[in-house]
Amino acid sequence: MKASIIGVTGYAGIELFRLLNNHSEIESVDLYSRSHQGELLRDIYPQFSDNRYILKKYKIDDIVDSDIVFTALPHGISQDIVIELFKKGLMVIDLSGDFRYKNPMIYEEWYDIKHRYPEYLIKAVYGLADINKKEIKGAKLIANPGCYPTASLLGIWPAFAEGIIKKQGIIIDAKSGISGAGSGVKKITQFTEIDENISAYAIGTHRHTSEIENALNNFSTNSSNIQVLFTPHLIPVKRGIMTTIYANLEKDINKDSLIKIYKNYYSEKGFIQLVKKAETKYVVPSNNCHISLEIDERLGRLVIISVIDNLIKGAAGQAVQNMNIALGFSEKTGLEAAGIFP
Amino acid sequence: MKASIIGVTGYAGIELFRLLNNHSEIESVDLYSRSHQGELLRDIYPQFSDNRYILKKYKIDDIVDSDIVFTALPHGISQDIVIELFKKGLMVIDLSGDFRYKNPMIYEEWYDIKHRYPEYLIKAVYGLADINKKEIKGAKLIANPGCYPTASLLGIWPAFAEGIIKKQGIIIDAKSGISGAGSGVKKITQFTEIDENISAYAIGTHRHTSEIENALNNFSTNSSNIQVLFTPHLIPVKRGIMTTIYANLEKDINKDSLIKIYKNYYSEKGFIQLVKKAETKYVVPSNNCHISLEIDERLGRLVIISVIDNLIKGAAGQAVQNMNIALGFSEKTGLEAAGIFP
Amino acid sequence: MKASIIGVTGYAGIELFRLLNNHSEIESVDLYSRSHQGELLRDIYPQFSDNRYILKKYKIDDIVDSDIVFTALPHGISQDIVIELFKKGLMVIDLSGDFRYKNPMIYEEWYDIKHRYPEYLIKAVYGLADINKKEIKGAKLIANPGCYPTASLLGIWPAFAEGIIKKQGIIIDAKSGISGAGSGVKKITQFTEIDENISAYAIGTHRHTSEIENALNNFSTNSSNIQVLFTPHLIPVKRGIMTTIYANLEKDINKDSLIKIYKNYYSEKGFIQLVKKAETKYVVPSNNCHISLEIDERLGRLVIISVIDNLIKGAAGQAVQNMNIALGFSEKTGLEAAGIFP
Amino acid sequence: MKASIIGVTGYAGIELFRLLNNHSEIESVDLYSRSHQGELLRDIYPQFSDNRYILKKYKIDDIVDSDIVFTALPHGISQDIVIELFKKGLMVIDLSGDFRYKNPMIYEEWYDIKHRYPEYLIKAVYGLADINKKEIKGAKLIANPGCYPTASLLGIWPAFAEGIIKKQGIIIDAKSGISGAGSGVKKITQFTEIDENISAYAIGTHRHTSEIENALNNFSTNSSNIQVLFTPHLIPVKRGIMTTIYANLEKDINKDSLIKIYKNYYSEKGFIQLVKKAETKYVVPSNNCHISLEIDERLGRLVIISVIDNLIKGAAGQAVQNMNIALGFSEKTGLEAAGIFP
Repeated sequence: MKASIIGVTGYAGIELFRLLNNHSEIESVDLYSRSHQGELLRDIYPQFSDNRYILKKYKIDDIVDSDIVFTALPHGISQDIVIELFKKGLMVIDLSGDFRYKNPMIYEEWYDIKHRYPEYLIKAVYGLADINKKEIKGAKLIANPGCYPTASLLGIWPAFAEGIIKKQGIIIDAKSGISGAGSGVKKITQFTEIDENISAYAIGTHRHTSEIENALNNFSTNSSNIQVLFTPHLIPVKRGIMTTIYANLEKDINKDSLIKIYKNYYSEKGFIQLVKKAETKYVVPSNNCHISLEIDERLGRLVIISVIDNLIKGAAGQAVQNMNIALGFSEKTGLEAAGIFP
Repeated sequence: MKASIIGVTGYAGIELFRLLNNHSEIESVDLYSRSHQGELLRDIYPQFSDNRYILKKYKIDDIVDSDIVFTALPHGISQDIVIELFKKGLMVIDLSGDFRYKNPMIYEEWYDIKHRYPEYLIKAVYGLADINKKEIKGAKLIANPGCYPTASLLGIWPAFAEGIIKKQGIIIDAKSGISGAGSGVKKITQFTEIDENISAYAIGTHRHTSEIENALNNFSTNSSNIQVLFTPHLIPVKRGIMTTIYANLEKDINKDSLIKIYKNYYSEKGFIQLVKKAETKYVVPSNNCHISLEIDERLGRLVIISVIDNLIKGAAGQAVQNMNIALGFSEKTGLEAAGIFP
Repeated sequence: MKASIIGVTGYAGIELFRLLNNHSEIESVDLYSRSHQGELLRDIYPQFSDNRYILKKYKIDDIVDSDIVFTALPHGISQDIVIELFKKGLMVIDLSGDFRYKNPMIYEEWYDIKHRYPEYLIKAVYGLADINKKEIKGAKLIANPGCYPTASLLGIWPAFAEGIIKKQGIIIDAKSGISGAGSGVKKITQFTEIDENISAYAIGTHRHTSEIENALNNFSTNSSNIQVLFTPHLIPVKRGIMTTIYANLEKDINKDSLIKIYKNYYSEKGFIQLVKKAETKYVVPSNNCHISLEIDERLGRLVIISVIDNLIKGAAGQAVQNMNIALGFSEKTGLEAAGIFP
Repeated sequence: MKASIIGVTGYAGIELFRLLNNHSEIESVDLYSRSHQGELLRDIYPQFSDNRYILKKYKIDDIVDSDIVFTALPHGISQDIVIELFKKGLMVIDLSGDFRYKNPMIYEEWYDIKHRYPEYLIKAVYGLADINKKEIKGAKLIANPGCYPTASLLGIWPAFAEGIIKKQGIIIDAKSGISGAGSGVKKITQFTEIDENISAYAIGTHRHTSEIENALNNFSTNSSNIQVLFTPHLIPVKRGIMTTIYANLEKDINKDSLIKIYKNYYSEKGFIQLVKKAETKYVVPSNNCHISLEIDERLGRLVIISVIDNLIKGAAGQAVQNMNIALGFSEKTGLEAAGIFP
């Protein structure tokens, strides 16, 4: 099979290349870049010594023979290319936020951009791979989830779906490594600004708030209006997201029973493991998600810790997982690698 | 004036020395250490090149002429020495948790140790210096607050005292640098364990939970039963604590009005500043606390970010501030230094 | 094939497991640990979720059916087990310093330990895999090189072998990540000691000095007495070694010609790449070595920068490479993974 | 006294402000900035909560009443302003490279810029404060040394001046924190590029090479032609420089005698201390320099480790020290602060 990556020089794009390059079902990967066309990949990312990889300028005609196309472009820009590819009948996995909502109003409210293809939103499948497998199978247009929503939703899902927690009052305090801010050169991501610092940003206004709410509302059987308070923080690590999720218990339940419920949802052979103490160092750089659960009986609260690698499970790895599910490959193909510690 | 530090080789102890050494009202500082007696300070902490400082073994008779004694010892061990000093009429500022509660039951429940001097608890003043100045003036026994309670209480206090937030349902998500774990050699604080990692610990069970609750209950006029959910995290920085505090609004209030209320509580000339974006890098290594406030109107929630240097405002600096207040010095003496960035 | 790892819970040992676990020629890996016998691997290294891996106590009888044994033990302790295994006819790759010298005197001088099996030293092959392939093929006892010697020797070898540099006056200034200090709990490797610090250690006395000299002397055709000045530094990163090598030019040569010579020595398809600017971030966590060369014409000096992952190319990866060569597998089996950046 | 800082928003400039703000002989500090004129200092550097500090546009007429002016501007740009101030009779300490050479040819060769005021070079004093005190006293134009030259020259000076080492063959391997690269926003100083990485740059071509050579040649009694090989490395710490200096011994000398010689050069009460093991963590953020010495008798080599804070001793602190010496203040005024560890 032949894959193409549009926007390969961003951090999600380059990790996609690394994973697809070692994927047993993918024979070749074509690489496209607006900003570096004509350059050798190894001149930009010297970890790849192979001199065969030249970055090409995106042209729809060069791509039409791809079996699958990954778009790793900024939101707003992505939608034109995604639709062009989709109309040509190509299978597309889009890593931007452009196709993650069925309702264009939510997109427009939180992204502050008019959606140019609202009629296609209904055709896109939300690729939260470990939850939404049935819809993903055979899908032609997959909206790959955001990094924060992936960590948050995997952490909260079983408790939420089983009605163990109240649907209101959920608080998600997220901590992210700096690669989550992308490869763009910015003052706020200079080493001197980030090193030895802890900061919060976009309190209550981060776009991923709406993505989390939207996913919970959609997956929820009765159409409730779920709202979450989401606060992201920047932590001086390269990779890794931890979401600390606070929820009020709806039912009396002890920790062991809760863990059993989670283990029923997430097969032991899959990418999600229930652990005593979830720490980012054990999931980076893998497609795994570690979850640990604590019940504060005194307060009737559940505290869920969910950790992922933001570039793998939170982007490129989940995209490959979506491809595997959609195309009927074994779900773990190309994603077997464990976390690397120390 | 002559000061003594018992337990100078811990991280709080050595910062106390640094601050007292540059304090215009302190002529001499005597240093005591169990583990390093007879050694030169500069052999343990080479940043101090002076060869006059020799670490002595603690003996009450050597200390009686001190005008003030700081005890920077582990809880449980501290109380014997504190009481011995106090009985001799010495003024003591204790940095351990041993005298932070009026009610010995709370101490015993959370510290899992029997208090050997419960009758003295009532004589100790809780040294939350920026809030509790009146009681601190002239006090002979001051319990210096913990690092997490200091950041949390300074952040929450004006909103709490003014009845702006509901007294139940407060969640404090704290992030701390590793010096907070002390100078002891441990596997969990090895560089390879901490670097490039985010972790949570003691969820719902950390002792500082009870200290925060206790302080809010004590300061509160009507004796309510306030409970908070407190979750500390370890972040790969040396110093700095951020507490992200989530509270439900009791009253309709906008951000500007709230900031005005905070500014009324905290004089502009003091150690606490209201800022647009509180980040640890701007308060380390100073005695300052930066606070930023966000109201999530959609959810009726207040999010408070409060940042301090855990070893200064959260330990040694606040101890010196307590001394300044208790002895009638100008409150900022020896603590004027600004944060150092970059 | 069946492999065994003795000492799997150290940092080299656990990386060996990770690599062998994904090695297409290895069907099973048995794990041995003195300190953690009876425990599940995943309780110590939670990145491995598989619950089949139990750490066993070393007994020679349990190991005799292994096709290959890796010993990842401290020097001095390793030699007894290595010889026991070797006498039983097992193929052994030893990651300690115990079998890296032909001459026991050098070992005893630099390691300050009497060698108990000097007669076996001659039977061991020095496993500098990219240089010493011929001897490694079919070897039964391979001494896997140290991390610093690997980076140093790969960097210097072509210039040295071709007589381009003077054999005296070589200076190697090395910078290492902290995982190189091993998994033992020590004060000097606590986060607060390492973070935001640069330090040097063992100046002129590090054991790897003798290993580098010994290898250069042995590979050298005429028995010269080569001496190098080697200074290691600790850098606040987890992984990665950079060696900055200073040598006096023997011949007039320009940079392009020198690069051509290096490229002749190191096949483009192998693990060593000549790059414009060698940085550790592009080789971690891979088995690759990046080398960059600068000629200071003003001073007649060559500056070689050589970077590796200390736990992969400098330990576990090279051990697997040695196995591949010795057993006739394709040299890159199980070691194809590129560096991961960001 | 009144001081002015031209270019206060760079990293050296802001540290100058912090130091002068606490300097007992300085009553007021005026701040000038091209890029941020009209802004409040605290909006750019929130560690300074004082709202009196407004950044002004540079105009010579506003500055003429300053007793001392510090210029912290890029080289090439600095010289025009320095000369304008100097001609008005103002005392100037220039932190750029523009006035560090007597010979404009060297400047032009290494900085690749024509010097527009070569006739003034002879009037400038090289402000290597701990070595060059006599010339600095009363000077009106002081060229503050570069960060690498300061660490290098302080480390090498006594051995060099006493003829203990050979004047040829000196190698300086330097490691620097990232603040040394300045406050400009660049790809190479983004967090993801620097964190967990070790890199070298400008091998044999860094401008500070010429500054070190020039200083050694000038201080040297007989006009020799000293050349050094200087290689800087970037290390993932915010602050701190270590220079590891390799020199060939001219004379037989043991370590104790050498330390005695160094201690004679550097008064115990000054800023330079001879220590067992020089590490950056004990000098940051102070004006101190720690030096440790090792003699490799086997090779007849001296290895000098010299560490400083690049922004203090390597820039702002030395500038204040130069002011103190030039104006006849006590040399340590405003610079007494010890290193801060942990």
